[in-house]
Amino acid sequence: MTGRPASPDQLTLTLDNPRAERVKKVAALTGRSARSRAGALLVEGPQSVREAVRFAPERVRDLYLSTDALERHRDIAAAALDAGRWVHLGTDAVLEAMSRDAQGIVAVVDETGIALDEVLAARPQLIAVLSNVRDPGNAGTVIRAADAAGADAVILAGECVDPSNPKVVRSAAGSLFHLPVVRALPLVDAVVELQSAGLRVLAADGAGTVTLGEPGADPEALAAPTAWVLGNEAWGLTAEERDLADEVVRIPIYGRAESLNLATAASVCLYASASAQRHQ
Amino acid sequence: MTGRPASPDQLTLTLDNPRAERVKKVAALTGRSARSRAGALLVEGPQSVREAVRFAPERVRDLYLSTDALERHRDIAAAALDAGRWVHLGTDAVLEAMSRDAQGIVAVVDETGIALDEVLAARPQLIAVLSNVRDPGNAGTVIRAADAAGADAVILAGECVDPSNPKVVRSAAGSLFHLPVVRALPLVDAVVELQSAGLRVLAADGAGTVTLGEPGADPEALAAPTAWVLGNEAWGLTAEERDLADEVVRIPIYGRAESLNLATAASVCLYASASAQRHQ
Repeated sequence: MTGRPASPDQLTLTLDNPRAERVKKVAALTGRSARSRAGALLVEGPQSVREAVRFAPERVRDLYLSTDALERHRDIAAAALDAGRWVHLGTDAVLEAMSRDAQGIVAVVDETGIALDEVLAARPQLIAVLSNVRDPGNAGTVIRAADAAGADAVILAGECVDPSNPKVVRSAAGSLFHLPVVRALPLVDAVVELQSAGLRVLAADGAGTVTLGEPGADPEALAAPTAWVLGNEAWGLTAEERDLADEVVRIPIYGRAESLNLATAASVCLYASASAQRHQ
Repeated sequence: MTGRPASPDQLTLTLDNPRAERVKKVAALTGRSARSRAGALLVEGPQSVREAVRFAPERVRDLYLSTDALERHRDIAAAALDAGRWVHLGTDAVLEAMSRDAQGIVAVVDETGIALDEVLAARPQLIAVLSNVRDPGNAGTVIRAADAAGADAVILAGECVDPSNPKVVRSAAGSLFHLPVVRALPLVDAVVELQSAGLRVLAADGAGTVTLGEPGADPEALAAPTAWVLGNEAWGLTAEERDLADEVVRIPIYGRAESLNLATAASVCLYASASAQRHQ
């Protein structure tokens, strides 16, 4: 660790070649195979990088900032140095070559895997399960909404988008570092494990016979430990997927819209449970 | 009207030149100035076009389909012909030149303006007001969520994105033709008019002193006719904007997320009101 600077003032400009191998390797993390080889993901922009440094400092391999970004975000650089992480200054061209969406600040962060049984050991009250969700923006926005609603974890079941995809990371706005995201589990396995752990599994779907928030629905049931299953953005849940759940619940459509989009539906369901769990 | 086909079977292939003036004029409607000159907007893809033909047939100037799209969406062509609208077949290349996001079916639809006083004359119970919302995807998703929650109108106040922007139209998924969207009003004028019409104006903002869904908040108050004001996706509402409202209400953040994204926040607020208005 000799020679590591202890404060942002001691950082000196080290990276000035946008075509350097190191720069290319960071930029390549937008691709899934490069992430898989490196066992790392790219975190772009001050908001997400700040949350990574704050909530998962042990996972931050390298933090890169332009001199302008260092001026604006000394707190992030200082926190990373305090945590004993490598912090590097680069020219604007270098940061631009690493990412065009980062406002001069990126971090390379270890990918982690967490297994569902680890999540369940902590006796979760509220979990969001996404099944075959393909759009990275949708997945990230649901992870952010699950975090806001106080969910204990998000499970990506079936053929979901890779949660380390840069668009997922951006849309999640730091929430990826706030709550565990379990990936690549067949939905049926996830549901069986959730039920064995005592969670009620509710499928959110327009085909539901129970309607969220209407007097017929039992508000006390909503206060139980719950996993909400949400389907693909285009076709929702298949009949087989719905059959796995303890109950299929529809969000009432009071107007003429055919449905809600995935992230807005997730928010309405998760907030209904979060509110019932706290106030009933 | 002589010569107009009465059924989809009578349609003959008419448009085969992707560089024709007519084709260019349709494609140009992605731009604001072309829309303004034509007084028309471009509606892309089967879902949105179907809703336009169903809920606003008098506004549909021209419907264009590829032969493949006609096979898949005979119902839309038939409904447009029934309503006395012009329906044209084109080659794949022509449809592709009109829009790359349309799956072979587009409509050119009259732009309409509706004034807030017309909306208020119908004694609305629930209205969403967006202030300075710039991102078309966000605006469209909120319009769709407002429709789902049974809102009577959406108001775009301050410097909002043009609701005829093709990305707004796509994200709204047809909801633009389900409920009136009032545009380009200074927020202060909108709030004064809403209050005069007897609506309670609630600003959704993290700075709120009342928390949505918590026991301290008065659930009966939520059942009153309400307009929710939501701010810009990045900076929210300014202090001046919040001061215009009767009450500033925060959505509780139970986890570590800093906030919800705009559309998910709008859904949680609008559904809370919709549910209270129906069940209390």
